[in-house]
Amino acid sequence: MQSSQNGWMQGAPPAAEKRITLDNWFIGEPVGWSFKNVQQLVPCAEAHRGTGPVSPIPNSQTMANIAKIEYVDQNQKRWTVPEMLAHTYTDGFLILRKGEAVFEQYFGLEPHQRHLLQSVSKSFTACLAGVFIEQGILDVARPISHYLPDYATSAYGDASVQQLLDMTVAVEYTEDYEDMGSDVNIHTISAGWYGPKIKAAGPKNAPESLYEYLPTLQTKADFEHGEKFHYVSANTDVLGILLERIGGQPFAKLFEEHIWQHMGAEENMAITVDPWGCAFPCGGFNVTLRDLGRFGLLCLHDGFYNDRQIVPAQFFADVRQNGSVEAFRKGADYSSTFPNAAYRNQFWKMGNENGAFFGVGIHGQYVYIDPAAEIVIAKLSSHPRPLVEGDFEITLLGFEAIVQALS
Amino acid sequence: MQSSQNGWMQGAPPAAEKRITLDNWFIGEPVGWSFKNVQQLVPCAEAHRGTGPVSPIPNSQTMANIAKIEYVDQNQKRWTVPEMLAHTYTDGFLILRKGEAVFEQYFGLEPHQRHLLQSVSKSFTACLAGVFIEQGILDVARPISHYLPDYATSAYGDASVQQLLDMTVAVEYTEDYEDMGSDVNIHTISAGWYGPKIKAAGPKNAPESLYEYLPTLQTKADFEHGEKFHYVSANTDVLGILLERIGGQPFAKLFEEHIWQHMGAEENMAITVDPWGCAFPCGGFNVTLRDLGRFGLLCLHDGFYNDRQIVPAQFFADVRQNGSVEAFRKGADYSSTFPNAAYRNQFWKMGNENGAFFGVGIHGQYVYIDPAAEIVIAKLSSHPRPLVEGDFEITLLGFEAIVQALS
Repeated sequence: MQSSQNGWMQGAPPAAEKRITLDNWFIGEPVGWSFKNVQQLVPCAEAHRGTGPVSPIPNSQTMANIAKIEYVDQNQKRWTVPEMLAHTYTDGFLILRKGEAVFEQYFGLEPHQRHLLQSVSKSFTACLAGVFIEQGILDVARPISHYLPDYATSAYGDASVQQLLDMTVAVEYTEDYEDMGSDVNIHTISAGWYGPKIKAAGPKNAPESLYEYLPTLQTKADFEHGEKFHYVSANTDVLGILLERIGGQPFAKLFEEHIWQHMGAEENMAITVDPWGCAFPCGGFNVTLRDLGRFGLLCLHDGFYNDRQIVPAQFFADVRQNGSVEAFRKGADYSSTFPNAAYRNQFWKMGNENGAFFGVGIHGQYVYIDPAAEIVIAKLSSHPRPLVEGDFEITLLGFEAIVQALS
Repeated sequence: MQSSQNGWMQGAPPAAEKRITLDNWFIGEPVGWSFKNVQQLVPCAEAHRGTGPVSPIPNSQTMANIAKIEYVDQNQKRWTVPEMLAHTYTDGFLILRKGEAVFEQYFGLEPHQRHLLQSVSKSFTACLAGVFIEQGILDVARPISHYLPDYATSAYGDASVQQLLDMTVAVEYTEDYEDMGSDVNIHTISAGWYGPKIKAAGPKNAPESLYEYLPTLQTKADFEHGEKFHYVSANTDVLGILLERIGGQPFAKLFEEHIWQHMGAEENMAITVDPWGCAFPCGGFNVTLRDLGRFGLLCLHDGFYNDRQIVPAQFFADVRQNGSVEAFRKGADYSSTFPNAAYRNQFWKMGNENGAFFGVGIHGQYVYIDPAAEIVIAKLSSHPRPLVEGDFEITLLGFEAIVQALS
């Protein structure tokens, strides 16, 4: 299942057909190597971990036997948790209950190795917005153009910061990862994630940087801002630039100063940057499995972690209490399995009795927080395909089964 | 003096004329920012620091007052040490005596921030060769083509590994950093250090990777291997690939496994990699100032550091005892100031009474080891120009003055 074992990037030099470059790292077998080695492909800025001690994650005296946890998926197919983990190309899996590890396993990933988070990065990013809200320097009710006047004529001109956080901006943007003409792929070119061959196959004069690309996005006419959940990765990058303008420093530095250096993280966080140095907060963060777990504990404890309030409690209260189920139903495919699901402040909400919420990224990245059960689940994966129909539900139903078994 | 203070890479986005990209990072004012942020420009592999404690560098009870240290340079000009540090665009300066810091100062560099070592990387690289020699898997008397048969028809075919280590291979290669048609710049393009504009101004069909470039280098006809010191950066990259072939893993992983994880380093070492993933051991290492000092202590103690023999003592005995003064005089410009200087195993030798030896990199990087005085000096700098006539001597004479004052 681990494609990195399949001869990719082995040898000096690796054979031409087993070489992973910016032109092939994103889809298929190379993902098994590349998501664990993003810094070898894309330049990165780092949020330094600081110089304090590592925040301990003790092992529980009673470890979980996940092999015995069984459940049925949305199609009534029966799974065990290990079957789900193998099916979804899991690289690392960590379950924390009341702050203790009850399960931790690595599959071809080293514990100190950082792994691409993809869109779990979005949930991290929003926490920095939470800090700025509390400081009174960010008012989410204001239009985005209040902070980014150069975005006035874009789709973001009259949308509010809260709509940006909630993915309800009416922006024309197609998010089809496997269509090279799709907006998400022009966007990804501008983020510096693609090499010369992919760029040659893409649109001519593609933007050189996110800074150049994002203000060009235009309004989508068929709904009003706020009306409907409309998942657009570009929104989080606009948020990142907005936070840079408010904070007066590059994104990685802000994230370090306000969040990462206070976490007791084991490793620095690496954030991909584009050719002009713009961070990619919609998907470019890389952290270790345990550091992803630490972030989950911060979310679980309403922003309090490593003996300090890092992100304001109010930000997580807002996540737990708000987010429109109605707007979500209009725009998301998952409502049949999760009828009460919603999205708030760059977190997905299960809409279940336990009030679980999570961050999720393509190819199988998750941080899942269950407040009632005091359980956090972190999952890093390298599925060869970005999205496989049904796997989202299979994974989340597995997490619910784990919570039930361990509660 | 710190060009990073001059508006470069500030703002979101930075102004076009203050943007640092792969097309302008290498020369002039951008160096003040770029050498501290190489990972934001060039993809990097990392040698992980391991999980052990940081090896302490205690402060001395009697710190050195370097302001009072005066000396005259090769042209009889008088300097104080602080004048020399400012003149050479110093970012960080550390003096260790008997393992204790007697001076440590940062100028616009953070203590945890990694800085490009340029050719000090070469001395690091050779230590890995030392490990493999001791293990009996590398015989320096053998021709390079014994380990790299695909280099048989290149200049490296019949040169020995020791000649590679000593920079006496007769290879046709011009090392003029400011001439874009010079071999060192084609070499640097193949290492992935330059952007699209520089590449367009360079030769057509430049190699995509060091793996592709290095075997093309041809023999220089006017001297025999071994006869003359002929400083060629490409040699160290050939050495790096040779070590990969012997060790069976990527360079960064080998360096981590055999050296870096045993050092008690504060930070991971970052090593730039080219588009095929080839490390750049001739110049692409990035470490913190204190970690550079730790490496100096390892050299000072014949490979013993952090309570263990990391690099075999024999390797450093060889550095101290061997290296041809005659070959050096034939090929180096510095003999008038340092008449007994030599070069051995990718280390420069002062040829002075104290037996001092050092690693040095363009734009002002140094690790200087004085065995008799038990002093190590680490210097990180960001001179806008790679080489300034006379600065090499001014710096080294300053180091000798420091040693004399502190002995």
